[in-house]
This record gives sequence, C-alpha cells and structure tokens, in this order.
Amino acid sequence: MSSFRVGLLGHGTVGAAFDALLRERADAVAASTGRRPELSGVLTSSRGDFDEILDASDLVVELIGGLEPAREYALRALRSRRHVVSANKQLLAQHGEELFDAAREAGVDLRFEAAVGGVVPVVRVVQETLAAAHVERVHGIVNGTTNFILTEMARTGASYSEALADAQRLGFAEADPSDDVDGTDAAAKMAILARLAFGGAVSLDQVTYEGIEHVTADDIAYARELGLSLKLVGTAERVDGGLSVRVHPAFLYAGHPLASVDGSFNAVTIESPTITEITLSGPGAGGSQTASAVLGDVVSAMLPPATPPAPATPVVIVGDVESAFYLHLEVADRPGVLAQVAELLGLQGISVKSVVQRGLGGDARLTIVVHPVRESRFLAAVGLIGRLDFLRVPPRWIRVIEEVFE
Amino acid sequence: MSSFRVGLLGHGTVGAAFDALLRERADAVAASTGRRPELSGVLTSSRGDFDEILDASDLVVELIGGLEPAREYALRALRSRRHVVSANKQLLAQHGEELFDAAREAGVDLRFEAAVGGVVPVVRVVQETLAAAHVERVHGIVNGTTNFILTEMARTGASYSEALADAQRLGFAEADPSDDVDGTDAAAKMAILARLAFGGAVSLDQVTYEGIEHVTADDIAYARELGLSLKLVGTAERVDGGLSVRVHPAFLYAGHPLASVDGSFNAVTIESPTITEITLSGPGAGGSQTASAVLGDVVSAMLPPATPPAPATPVVIVGDVESAFYLHLEVADRPGVLAQVAELLGLQGISVKSVVQRGLGGDARLTIVVHPVRESRFLAAVGLIGRLDFLRVPPRWIRVIEEVFE
Repeated sequence: MSSFRVGLLGHGTVGAAFDALLRERADAVAASTGRRPELSGVLTSSRGDFDEILDASDLVVELIGGLEPAREYALRALRSRRHVVSANKQLLAQHGEELFDAAREAGVDLRFEAAVGGVVPVVRVVQETLAAAHVERVHGIVNGTTNFILTEMARTGASYSEALADAQRLGFAEADPSDDVDGTDAAAKMAILARLAFGGAVSLDQVTYEGIEHVTADDIAYARELGLSLKLVGTAERVDGGLSVRVHPAFLYAGHPLASVDGSFNAVTIESPTITEITLSGPGAGGSQTASAVLGDVVSAMLPPATPPAPATPVVIVGDVESAFYLHLEVADRPGVLAQVAELLGLQGISVKSVVQRGLGGDARLTIVVHPVRESRFLAAVGLIGRLDFLRVPPRWIRVIEEVFE
Repeated sequence: MSSFRVGLLGHGTVGAAFDALLRERADAVAASTGRRPELSGVLTSSRGDFDEILDASDLVVELIGGLEPAREYALRALRSRRHVVSANKQLLAQHGEELFDAAREAGVDLRFEAAVGGVVPVVRVVQETLAAAHVERVHGIVNGTTNFILTEMARTGASYSEALADAQRLGFAEADPSDDVDGTDAAAKMAILARLAFGGAVSLDQVTYEGIEHVTADDIAYARELGLSLKLVGTAERVDGGLSVRVHPAFLYAGHPLASVDGSFNAVTIESPTITEITLSGPGAGGSQTASAVLGDVVSAMLPPATPPAPATPVVIVGDVESAFYLHLEVADRPGVLAQVAELLGLQGISVKSVVQRGLGGDARLTIVVHPVRESRFLAAVGLIGRLDFLRVPPRWIRVIEEVFE
C-alpha cells in the first residue's frame, strides 16, 4: 500500500494530539482510503526544516498559529501543489482570499474545519449547503470559553469574574482570556463563515463585535423570568441588499436551537427558506477534538471525489444490550410495597437511580428509574414484580437513555 | 459554460420540488461549480423512456421509491458510469451493498443524503467522521412523524390517537401512518447509518424495532416529574465486540442533545472518544427540504474533489440592523412611570412584546422585551429614557434573538 505523507508544522497541544491521533488511526484511514498516512516531518521553533518537510509531503498541516510565518508556509505549500490543512482562524480570516486563490490556481485542497467550529463540521456543511440553498442567515455560538462562562453564571448565579476564574481553573479559559471574552475570536470565525455562506470577502474590520465582560448575573436572572437565556451569538445575515456580520451577547428564547447549547460546546444554525434550518453542535475546543477535526480534513483530502463506503466487513449483532429503564407501577398503598419491589430489582443486580411515589386514594403510583442493566435481567425482574399481589395493573416500562456526560 | 445533465426518475411531491429547485438554483450552482445543471429528461409511470434518459444524463436522480424498478434503474445507471443520487431508504437499506459495489467498480458517485436525515447532512458527516474517529455510538431521532406526535402528546396532554389525528390533519403523517409509527421507517435509516458508521453490512432483519403506538399520555406526564422526555430513538452502537442496532421509544434526560429536538425535526448524535459527540439537527421531511438534500448531493457530485470557494464577490456591509431588545430599568415606584417609558418607545415606533414589573421597596424593576426594531431607533429611545428623572440607575439593554419559528 502506498503512503500519504503528511508534514506537520507546529507541535504544541493540538500538534502533539494530532501526531498521536494520526498514528492511532493510520490503519483505519488506510482501510478507507487505500493509502497509509504517515508523518513525513515535524517543524517546531527548535527543529525541522520547512523546505525539506515540504519536499517530503503530499499535504502540509499548519498548526503554528498566528499570521507569520504560518501565512508564508501555507502559501509556499499551496504553490508547490501540496494540499494544506489549517486550524488557524486568524490566518483564514485575514488572508483567506490569498490562500483560496493559491489553492484554486494550484488545483489543490485547502481545508480549515478546525479553524471555525472545533469538531463541528460547519465549514463543509456551509460550503455544501450554499450551492444547493440560498442561505439567509448563520447564527453561531463559536467560542467555547464564553459559552462556558455564561452557562456557569446562569447555573450558579456567579458573577462574570467568578465564572471566569472557574473557567480558568478548569482549563476552559486561558490565563489571558482577552481574545475569547472580548469577542475577537468569535469575530474571526464569523468572518470566515460569512465568506463561505455568502461568497463575499468580509474583512475582519467589517465585523462589529462586543464581548461578555459587562454581563451581570442580574441580567441573566431577570431575563430568565421572560424565558430567555444569554449566549454570545455571532450573526452573519443578508439584510437590505447587503450583509451584516456581528458578534454580541444576545438573549434566546427557549425554543431557539442555540438556546440549549451549554458549557464549552459550539453550535451553528444555518437558515434558508428552502431548508428552514440546520443546526450543528459539538465540543468547541480541546486538543483531541481539534486534532480530530484536522485529521478529518486530511482524510477528506486523501479521498477521491466519489467514494462509496469500503466493502462491508462481517458484523456480529448483539441482542441483549444494557439499558437504563423507567418502570411505572400502580400499587396498593400499604407498608412494605417499595421494599418488595426494591428487593426483586436488587436480586437481578438492578440499581435504582430515582423513585417518585404518589398517593392515589388507597393506591399509590411508583415511578422508578434504574441504572443501566442487561435487558434480560430487567425483564426478569419485571416478570416477578408483575406477579406481586399488590399490583393494580400490569407494570409499564420504557427505556431511558442516559446523558452523554454525567 | 458546459452543462451538467440530470435525469430525473419520479415526479411526485419530492420530484416536482426538485425540478423547481433545480431551475431556481441553476445560476448559483453554475457559479460555484462551473457547470450549469439542467434536466435531461423525466421518467414517470406515464411518460419518458429510461434508456433515452440514461443516454442523455451525467447523473440520475432516483425518486421513484420502493424496491423495483428503482433498484434496476440505479444499478443500470451506475454500471453505465453515471452518478446516482437517491432519496430511497428502503433501497439503500436492502440493496446497499450491491449498489455500493456497482458504484465502486464504475468509479462513480452514489449519494443518498435525503434517504436518512432529510436535510440534515448525517450521511456525509458520519462517512467523513468515521475515517478520522472511532465511532462508538450513533443515536438518532430519524422519523419526523413520530417526533411530531410525541411532541404534541407532551405539549398538550393528548392521547396517541388524538395526536396522530392532528399530525394527519397538518400533513405530518400519512393517511396510512404504519411505516412511521411502528418504527419500520426509522429501522431502515438506522441500518444505513450503522453501515456507514461501523463499516459492517447490517441487514434490515438484524434491526430490532418498536413503535410508539402503545405510548400513553400518562407515561409522558409521569416521566416529566423525573426530568425525562420521550422520543423514538434509533441506536447503533458497538457492544461486547459486536453491534446492536435498534429503534424504540426512550426517555432522555434534559441534558441529552436529542432531548430538545421537537416537532417534526430529525437529529443525530455521533459519539466517539476522540470527538466526544457531534449533534446535527434540522427538518426531517417535507418536499422542499428533501429536494434540497437531493440537490446538495447533485452539487457534491459535480464538484471536483478539492474545491476552494469561488473567487469572492463584492459585499456591502450594513451597520444599522434590526434586533429585538431586552431593556432593564430600575425606577421609582410611582404612577405613570410605565406610561412614560412606553410613550418614549412608541415615539420611535418600538413595539413592546412583554413587560415584567417587580416592586423593590419604594422602587420597582421593569424588564421589557421589545419586538425587532432598527438599533439606531432603539438606542435613541434608550437615550431619552435614560434622562427620565425617576430612573435610579442607567438603563441596561441586551439584544434578543427571536425564535426561528414563531
């Protein structure tokens, strides 16, 4: 099998995570693309030579950050007909046209999914949606640090500075958080999204932005009375025959698709009369997530245009899976009922997560949620519970899907 | 400019919407791909000849539905080295391998985004995510009819049969809703997603499924006490060295990314240790949405692999946009205060959406939300309000983003 040679510029948090992920996923990528990706060289401030790496690479991954020498290296790689993948939002926002021109002239691929929505594939969805639908508006929560801070303020009633300190302690904000909290970071991302959605070059100084430094816990508390939650929202929209691209704190009604995007997550909603709206959400940052977005771009560049899935591999279907369950019992309201039910559950190794008991005259209603257990065990317990003499109607049960993060 | 010839098989609701959308978007597609898409022929039960259409087409769109002759036509098109786009979930779920093999051998494109998540681009995201990340689990709300019914039951307390009747009246359920409500439709979609996410061929009879016919309004009401909401959830996951693919009603905690997906929307969450999770959501069905997904596939097939955006077009940046606002005032609690505030808002043509007034000893707190208005007008009104003598502190305001659907 031939190899696909990847030159890596930068070896900080994301670079190191990409290096490790590339090794871990090399077999899987080889299976789906027919070529085995391998690092052809690494450039850091203390080692490696750019020209040697360029010569030895089919694709260059730029994870240096900042404008120079990232811009120079990316341009030289494109002009040497190498694909380029970058996670550098400032580079794309400020020198996008120059880079797009170079990629178009050389007929190579320039991908930058990780520069906008972290692991959320907004770049490719906006680009591909654009051709088939007239995009009217893009709304985005595109900065994980500020969304984490606002979520904490809403959840705990903390002040901005308390929530910022928490975010710093937990690694969701940097020691100098200025670019995140003042909206600069989100503004660069919205400039890139506007370019993709509307086809016009939007320079960074055409994006108006405000940050979250002046938001108070009171604002959040009072607005909640009106059913509103506060987010730092980026907007790119067609208006009055032109465009508006801006970032500012905004309240969202509970029904808005971005209103429930909490913590350090990012999300983007694309609105169009034809499609109504599409929303994409996922983790906004983190070394391994960004590395995954970068590797996704590398794999896309490796694939020929029209790849059907690789031939199918054999599968084993598992029947008796684990699930949490909700169990609903209507019982005579007398002592010992809950104890007997709990005993039958316990005999099958089933652990109870929550119980609500409500009186109904001489009867009672028990609604129980149990932790994940093999379905066969749960059904065995329900069979035994169904034979208890104090049961008024047959037990009812429905599966429960646990939260992804608990 | 050369043309890209599209043969259309089927001219029902989706076919007619695709026909109209293709004409509407032809200029935009030509601008982004360099070729102008045009219909080369339409096959229905009463007109058109498949062989003539095939000869005259670069790509065939299959919107006939059902297994035959859709399968035969798709295979013949692929073997004649035509790209194929299909919205036919049963065809892909039951004959996917045969079609993938034919596409692979011919080196052409087989795309079927509309067969799974409506306009939500889950097929391409799962396919592209797969190569870069080890997918552990896919959860999906992949049937808009059942999600509409369950949302109505939760919102109004209606019974299953009442909510189904509503869905039929509003066009969200067919006269014979069996395939939707018994889980058959979702099972086919999950079989396709499992194939893409895990690389193994999952036959439809390996998917276990249950529908929503036996869900009661009580189940939904009682579970809400525990913070749970009910959805028809499809799951495809790795478990015990094998796979489980299944569809059943399931409760979700409020924090789950699928818990807030309401109405006829679809959504899919892809979980992987590397990426944590990505969630995609959007309208599940409807002729124009499906047509848009089909056109998106056509455009993808037209694009060379590594297309940077087309050269930038000029843009006009609009500064003074419309926005709804939240306005927070602390005032002396005396008669006429609200009237004066309302008058100043009214003079700028600003319409009040909601007001909450709370007493604070001798003072009062007014939180007001106004309907969208040009920012300059709102700021002018706030300037005047800020000069009122009964104001205790300067006015505070934050923008409000309205719901997409109101």
